[in-house]
Amino acid sequence: MIKAIIFDLDNTLVDFMLLKRVAVDAAIHAMIDAGLKLTFTETKELINKIYESEGIEYQQVFDHLLKQALGSLDYKIMSAGIVAYRTAREAALKPYPGVLPTLIELIKMGLKLAVVSDAPSKEAWLRLSYINFHHFFDVVITYDETRERKPSPVPFNMALEELKLNADECLMIGDWAERDMVGAKAVGMKTVFARYGDTFDTENPDSDYDINSITELINIVKKENSLQ
Amino acid sequence: MIKAIIFDLDNTLVDFMLLKRVAVDAAIHAMIDAGLKLTFTETKELINKIYESEGIEYQQVFDHLLKQALGSLDYKIMSAGIVAYRTAREAALKPYPGVLPTLIELIKMGLKLAVVSDAPSKEAWLRLSYINFHHFFDVVITYDETRERKPSPVPFNMALEELKLNADECLMIGDWAERDMVGAKAVGMKTVFARYGDTFDTENPDSDYDINSITELINIVKKENSLQ
Repeated sequence: MIKAIIFDLDNTLVDFMLLKRVAVDAAIHAMIDAGLKLTFTETKELINKIYESEGIEYQQVFDHLLKQALGSLDYKIMSAGIVAYRTAREAALKPYPGVLPTLIELIKMGLKLAVVSDAPSKEAWLRLSYINFHHFFDVVITYDETRERKPSPVPFNMALEELKLNADECLMIGDWAERDMVGAKAVGMKTVFARYGDTFDTENPDSDYDINSITELINIVKKENSLQ
Repeated sequence: MIKAIIFDLDNTLVDFMLLKRVAVDAAIHAMIDAGLKLTFTETKELINKIYESEGIEYQQVFDHLLKQALGSLDYKIMSAGIVAYRTAREAALKPYPGVLPTLIELIKMGLKLAVVSDAPSKEAWLRLSYINFHHFFDVVITYDETRERKPSPVPFNMALEELKLNADECLMIGDWAERDMVGAKAVGMKTVFARYGDTFDTENPDSDYDINSITELINIVKKENSLQ
């Protein structure tokens, strides 16, 4: 009997790659408007390199860029970048189509909802709060709680403990086969591959289900629970 | 001959006290919604005390509050507060009525525009960028450049140097008599008291002019320059 759904956050509930691209592009245009003497392409390449070395959640990317490109921090250019980034991010930070009604339907069906994310706590919670999703989840496990990333069993087991459920009572949905599917399967959960959020062209996610819209979760739960 | 106007930023160009109040109130409501077990009034008093001890620009106010009130950091509550704060601040961060057309008119009259603010560089520039004012000013002097606050002559003299003008060619406008008026007069500038931004019920600002709307600046400049 499925009693809880465990969601990955980025590229499963929200289109993180889209919001990152939209926000960074807006920031680059604003920094050039504010006096940055680099082309769009040059700036984008520098930013991508910084994210590659410091991680995609790195919060000082524009400071870092300007110190690297100009040798010092220009507050006018940096602030223009930060403001454009934040404004564009807020506009682009939306749940995927179907996510909100699906969550509400799952709650009506009596299921608990959880998030297991490898993102840092503050950034994960900020994203959840921006879309008013912070009220929906019974349990949220982020990187800071466990210091272990999926497919490690640690975050999955912490979620199970807080949900007070067994692995076979949970369904894990995520876009990253090697982390979300492999990790959840290893602890004994059923798995759903969020094909709509896949950015790796994954051929075989080795999951129990493979969906193109999050709304398909409803019928999956109904099917699973009618089989009991 | 007046060749430049030097503006204070907070409570002269933007209604900083309003935006702070609106943003903090929104944050308190959101934190209570997210599970904070304090009343609105209790929370507001704690926040005011933190701002009093750490300064009004303190960026970790919600972390600090939650550690104090709960003994630990609750990311759900903190993120709810931060998101509500940012969203409300952006909505409330507007120039006073008349500021934008006045700046444009002053530029058309051939004047240079500068800002001399005691705010930290990053916060001052972020506020300027949020309202798209970062393109208007020839010179912006903030606390980080001089590490001296008005009425010290240091920030005023740095502005004059960067403007390449003498003190008697500049008009200083600000809402804080003891800082903006006293400091500018001491270095030899004409002064305009921004009565509309005064939060101290200042009786006698000891300024050359005392205005209820920033649009009055246009006629002040015309008058000053026709007297030459």
